[in-house]
Amino acid sequence: MTTAFEEPAGKAELEEGSALTPRFSADGLVTAVVTDSRDGVLLMVAHMNAETLALTLDTGIAHYYSRSRQAIWKKGESSGNLQRVTEIRVDCDQDAIWLKVDVDGHGATCHTGRRSCFYRKVESDEAGAHRLITDTEAPLFDPTMVYQK
Amino acid sequence: MTTAFEEPAGKAELEEGSALTPRFSADGLVTAVVTDSRDGVLLMVAHMNAETLALTLDTGIAHYYSRSRQAIWKKGESSGNLQRVTEIRVDCDQDAIWLKVDVDGHGATCHTGRRSCFYRKVESDEAGAHRLITDTEAPLFDPTMVYQK
Repeated sequence: MTTAFEEPAGKAELEEGSALTPRFSADGLVTAVVTDSRDGVLLMVAHMNAETLALTLDTGIAHYYSRSRQAIWKKGESSGNLQRVTEIRVDCDQDAIWLKVDVDGHGATCHTGRRSCFYRKVESDEAGAHRLITDTEAPLFDPTMVYQK
Repeated sequence: MTTAFEEPAGKAELEEGSALTPRFSADGLVTAVVTDSRDGVLLMVAHMNAETLALTLDTGIAHYYSRSRQAIWKKGESSGNLQRVTEIRVDCDQDAIWLKVDVDGHGATCHTGRRSCFYRKVESDEAGAHRLITDTEAPLFDPTMVYQK
């Protein structure tokens, strides 16, 4: 397994080259944006370190780095909602990764049981106050059942 | 202008409530994911602090925080490619923001002149080596002309 990535060889190569040279932050992470292969809906945002990016590339199953648990996070391992990667893209300065995925199991990505983590829209009133409106779609699984210990 | 956001009032309210209580990181930022209102294509990933999130909410024009320049970044101010926000969503734990935008000007988001910053796909060979394949679409503007001093 490849867990070491090369360093970027200057700005031109970083932005226009063919070498995958992720720019990890000071804490060793890149941002991963995850959309559904079928219709492009944004499912979640997470982080990867070099090891979990390599795991994702090598296995085709999305692995992230959990900042709260400080551990490798094989997404869907508990719930069965594994993410099968169909395409990976990088952005211009290679500090963000875009994964297109097919989701196994319930087809849900959020730990609340919903398909996407982005189930609330910001609504602003004329006075400049903001509130969140939750989508009315029912969750795809019951987290109290799926995550019981 | 509202530049102060409330603190989250516990996990249940954070995840299921109607209060916009962004969880800024230790360096004061949330991740912003930006997609095209028209077809959902991922255009860029950036960061916002409380001030630029408030500016975005209040003006309807996307403002980010530039980590490299350590300054407010009104996206498209130089190139004319302003982003007009049509919808804002937050994720379950409110540390990521999803902006759907219409892009002015050339319709390009990337500083390389391309529509999206994600113009390279990762291709892996059977030996486990990875390389980036650049999309063949021509850039929408010439950065050497647009950003000349």
